Amino acid sequence: MELVKLNDGFKLLYQDKCIIHHTAENPSIYIGYGNETVEMYRGNFDIKDYVIERYPLKSFTIQKINNGYSLNFENKLTANIKIEDNRFLMDFEKKDDKINRFWIRIDADENEKCFGCGEQMSYFNLRGRNFPLWTSEPGVGRDKTTYVTWRSDVENKAGGDYYNTNYPQPTYVSTKHYYLHVDSTAYADFNFKNKAFHELQIWEVPKQIRIEAAPTYIELLEKLTGFLGRQVELPDWIYNGAILGLQGGTERSFALVDRSLRNGIKVSGVWCQDWAGKRITSFGKRLNWNWKWNQEMYPELPEKIKEYKAKNIRFLAYNNPYLVKEGDLYKEGKEKGYFAKSLDGNDYLVDFGEFDCGVVDFTNPKAYEWFKELIKKHIIEFGIDGWMADFGEYLPTDLQLYNGSPAMIEHNHWPVLWAKCNYEALVETGKLGEIVYFMRAGGAGSQKYCTLLWAGDQSVDFSMHDGLVTVICGALSAAMSGCGLHHSDIGGYTSLFNNCRTKEVFLRWAEMAVFTPVMRTHEGNRPEENFQYYDDADTLEQFARLTEIYTMLAPYIKSLVSINAASGLPVQRPLFLHYENDEKTYDIQTEYLFGEDMLIAPVYLPDAREWEVYLPNDQWVHLWTGKEYEGGTVTVEAGMGFTPAFYKKNSKYASLFESIQKQYGIK
Amino acid sequence: MELVKLNDGFKLLYQDKCIIHHTAENPSIYIGYGNETVEMYRGNFDIKDYVIERYPLKSFTIQKINNGYSLNFENKLTANIKIEDNRFLMDFEKKDDKINRFWIRIDADENEKCFGCGEQMSYFNLRGRNFPLWTSEPGVGRDKTTYVTWRSDVENKAGGDYYNTNYPQPTYVSTKHYYLHVDSTAYADFNFKNKAFHELQIWEVPKQIRIEAAPTYIELLEKLTGFLGRQVELPDWIYNGAILGLQGGTERSFALVDRSLRNGIKVSGVWCQDWAGKRITSFGKRLNWNWKWNQEMYPELPEKIKEYKAKNIRFLAYNNPYLVKEGDLYKEGKEKGYFAKSLDGNDYLVDFGEFDCGVVDFTNPKAYEWFKELIKKHIIEFGIDGWMADFGEYLPTDLQLYNGSPAMIEHNHWPVLWAKCNYEALVETGKLGEIVYFMRAGGAGSQKYCTLLWAGDQSVDFSMHDGLVTVICGALSAAMSGCGLHHSDIGGYTSLFNNCRTKEVFLRWAEMAVFTPVMRTHEGNRPEENFQYYDDADTLEQFARLTEIYTMLAPYIKSLVSINAASGLPVQRPLFLHYENDEKTYDIQTEYLFGEDMLIAPVYLPDAREWEVYLPNDQWVHLWTGKEYEGGTVTVEAGMGFTPAFYKKNSKYASLFESIQKQYGIK
Repeated sequence: MELVKLNDGFKLLYQDKCIIHHTAENPSIYIGYGNETVEMYRGNFDIKDYVIERYPLKSFTIQKINNGYSLNFENKLTANIKIEDNRFLMDFEKKDDKINRFWIRIDADENEKCFGCGEQMSYFNLRGRNFPLWTSEPGVGRDKTTYVTWRSDVENKAGGDYYNTNYPQPTYVSTKHYYLHVDSTAYADFNFKNKAFHELQIWEVPKQIRIEAAPTYIELLEKLTGFLGRQVELPDWIYNGAILGLQGGTERSFALVDRSLRNGIKVSGVWCQDWAGKRITSFGKRLNWNWKWNQEMYPELPEKIKEYKAKNIRFLAYNNPYLVKEGDLYKEGKEKGYFAKSLDGNDYLVDFGEFDCGVVDFTNPKAYEWFKELIKKHIIEFGIDGWMADFGEYLPTDLQLYNGSPAMIEHNHWPVLWAKCNYEALVETGKLGEIVYFMRAGGAGSQKYCTLLWAGDQSVDFSMHDGLVTVICGALSAAMSGCGLHHSDIGGYTSLFNNCRTKEVFLRWAEMAVFTPVMRTHEGNRPEENFQYYDDADTLEQFARLTEIYTMLAPYIKSLVSINAASGLPVQRPLFLHYENDEKTYDIQTEYLFGEDMLIAPVYLPDAREWEVYLPNDQWVHLWTGKEYEGGTVTVEAGMGFTPAFYKKNSKYASLFESIQKQYGIK
Repeated sequence: MELVKLNDGFKLLYQDKCIIHHTAENPSIYIGYGNETVEMYRGNFDIKDYVIERYPLKSFTIQKINNGYSLNFENKLTANIKIEDNRFLMDFEKKDDKINRFWIRIDADENEKCFGCGEQMSYFNLRGRNFPLWTSEPGVGRDKTTYVTWRSDVENKAGGDYYNTNYPQPTYVSTKHYYLHVDSTAYADFNFKNKAFHELQIWEVPKQIRIEAAPTYIELLEKLTGFLGRQVELPDWIYNGAILGLQGGTERSFALVDRSLRNGIKVSGVWCQDWAGKRITSFGKRLNWNWKWNQEMYPELPEKIKEYKAKNIRFLAYNNPYLVKEGDLYKEGKEKGYFAKSLDGNDYLVDFGEFDCGVVDFTNPKAYEWFKELIKKHIIEFGIDGWMADFGEYLPTDLQLYNGSPAMIEHNHWPVLWAKCNYEALVETGKLGEIVYFMRAGGAGSQKYCTLLWAGDQSVDFSMHDGLVTVICGALSAAMSGCGLHHSDIGGYTSLFNNCRTKEVFLRWAEMAVFTPVMRTHEGNRPEENFQYYDDADTLEQFARLTEIYTMLAPYIKSLVSINAASGLPVQRPLFLHYENDEKTYDIQTEYLFGEDMLIAPVYLPDAREWEVYLPNDQWVHLWTGKEYEGGTVTVEAGMGFTPAFYKKNSKYASLFESIQKQYGIK
């Protein structure tokens, strides 16, 4: 990386390519101010901006400082730039309080591709589109041409669009071999539509823009995760089989575990999201948001937890950072003054869909500690070994926070505060690495504080923007943002407007989940109307087979998880991470490398009997037949249970893969 | 009106209220530049703007000139302002070629209301919304919550939104008693969302902004139409009854006329839109766009025209400014080089829905004259007494025009050029006032050049944004834009996705049309699937009754049309035009005054037996019962055929109204 001072500006270069080119004639930075309007309905945001002024920073002085230069733009903004170890840092300070909009143009090549921006569910390569970065509900359907999206929009403003995500992050990796990260949690919009530049918009002057370059993407991810943090390894018990998402009380849940075991299903845990009680709404089954054991629904739970732990089956629960106003924990928090306030000074209550909750104010250190202690006491000390740490995206923008920070700035910060609260509860109880919680919401910092991502609430179908295939894109974009541990609800979650999970959707999703770090089922929002793994003998048998393959793969998966923890090289990887010279790999978002030694091309459409797969040039062996391939586009058998999977012939795990083929391959 | 020079700017006042307040500290004008992207699909436009710079004109010099002041803004823009006769003129000249965006803020009061912007179908009072001004298809459904809109969007990008209109115009009337008109045909967006100001955006520096004030709205409309022009009176034959929209050839059309006459229907004309031939597409019945007599479909038409003219029934036809590439007129125009060119120099062909047409280049005087001569020769001299002069909204933005003017500027100008071409054909043949053509597309200038507006292609239903009720809003907003002659397709036009016209929709629409300048039926895009007036004996009878009432009203209607021609006071009027002091009248867009002496509150929903009406304080008589009212909210009987209608007791037409009541009232 090279920083070149020009007469009237500077250039940032890497491998002879220009990344930023700032001159008086063609300034790369624009500032201004605007008034936004933000409307939230149950986690879905309608955000509009009215830009009042926007002008380029044409006039400036530039002077040498230690390691770099200082630029002063008309006394409105200063930028200190420096370079060290292939790392470019641009620190900003605003001198004019009115400024609340900031745009920077990064030089682009026409054929450049970009990846990241957090967990993106529709498009892996960001080029050609803009990506508003604002944590929210991801939408139901997420495609204005589908009936489910339209109905969701009309009835709940919930249809969503390609860019809606629980986990946005102002970071991307460019095929010009750099990553760029903006140090800001303000609303942002990264626009990759232009041929000659990317324009990054941030609704504040960011503290810093950081650009780091490396000759390979693997080194780049190592640098990025070195900076942002990395996930710890998963606990060993994860690899014992699938986590079964069950509910309905002690009797039903454990009876289903027993039935699953009798049918040969390998079980690592039983996850009862309704451990704190349930609530029925028009959406479907919801929970009682008062995060402690519900003794009525779950009698004898402590004993059951011990009993099953002895059988190597862990118990998992559920929490989120809100408390329902009818619950005793809300009452306690209210008395202590631990909830965020509305502008009139009362506790702000958020509608989560026919029930209202207080928002624990994590900017108040006492509130944060209180909630962390609740997690320790009611969950960890209770004997629970994992949970879904749900939500985090609903911080309204019209509330007051304890620390005085604007909600517009804290909104995107909230998922990370929420992750950190769970993380510290683990650290302080000595349980990090033994307990796992999984989150859908995220931001810069989730890399360290979130033990496992889950892809959120997909529709229970094969739709292109909200179905099975989207979790691949989610895993890969999260990976390029520094989060290398990802998994999803097997079979999806959201069933609305008569869109119900079929057996085929469940089984295709399950066969993909084998080749992810964690297998976990979910009964969905409307269990009765949707297909469940225990609904017929055939599925029980097929699912048992898949959990067996997963446990056989465990040594391999565990090695991948360990690499991710050590260097940030993700478990699910885009093909180009290991095949940089193969141009074709950059456009693939429906296949992934599962570690360096496996390539998975999940069946994501109905009625498939065979499947077309692109293999980069290498020595590949088809997992289910042992047939060998050398690369190119190939078509393989893809009957149910045989999602296209390949391993490298020279893998040190080749004998493990061969044993899977012998036992479970296509005969 | 008063223009006050300040130390660092100026103020424009009327009746002590500020209209423009421009100072260095709070400038009212912003300029900048942007890059738009415009995509057209069959007349539906997707327009996006990327504003690169936008800054206020803070720094300027101001000096006295004749009648006013000259402002020079940093040598980027000059504005000469002057005032005369309660008229404020602001003439602009740009000094910097880069500028292609212009914003001006007009001071607003919180309770102010604004009306106009051409023909608006969803919202009469413009306040609280923004209105992009760009002539286009108005959309099918125009309401993202309806099934028809969603399907139209998905299948044809055609669902539309509240602001889509065939006839936009950069003019509005404010309740601060002024009108404002922007002299520009560029894309514009008038934003009435802000409490303290209206922000008008124009995609060029406009030549002039004109503000004229008057103590009453009636005087204001007189001034506005004095400036923009006024419609001539309708021909007398219009009042003979309804124009029947029929098609399918000589035999079918005239047989239906005869059958209508036998059933007592008063007929003023027969309108055969397929006189030039037809074409079947997936949308429904379309026409052969080669604007001359189709002898195969309409044998003996010249004789029939004469025969029926002798019976006082005129023949009406159809044209538009495009020619289908398979036709002989296209061939002739192509040889002469009269079509607009694509950027590669070939004739630009526009897809109108499964057929392609050339765009007659009206900026080429020879092409314009040629097309005018075609109208004279093939239509007027042929003996035709009226036509639908359709379309005008489809000028693509990626073509080259003869005069070198950018298509982005000519697009909104096209409907007026098209109207003018028809107008001159009438003037030059001495037929103005004898022949009538009706148009849906419009702009500033339609006032003079368009003999009659028609409301475009409503859906055949009672929907709030595309059904019967929308044509009231269309009439009133066109009226406030200076166009006082309006009518619509009885029963609506567009039937898609199993949304079909019912008998009730037809009859409710027909009973409203009695109280408009012109009654005209249309079989719609899918005649066989939709209810027609000739479908049952009961409807023939009811429709006959309605045409009789219309002809009885003719003297009154004719007097209104005459007033409109003389002073621009529209035939259909918002209530506040005559009841300025009644605050409630300003929010009414579903009732109208039909001249000064009648108030009409059409039934616009299904299954009504009675109807609630707001009457301003006056002496009202219910047309169908003779019952008297003095104002306020009243409920009246509203069975089929009795759309709520009232007249003023002291009207000089009272005996005419009474005779209608005696003959056709509720017994």
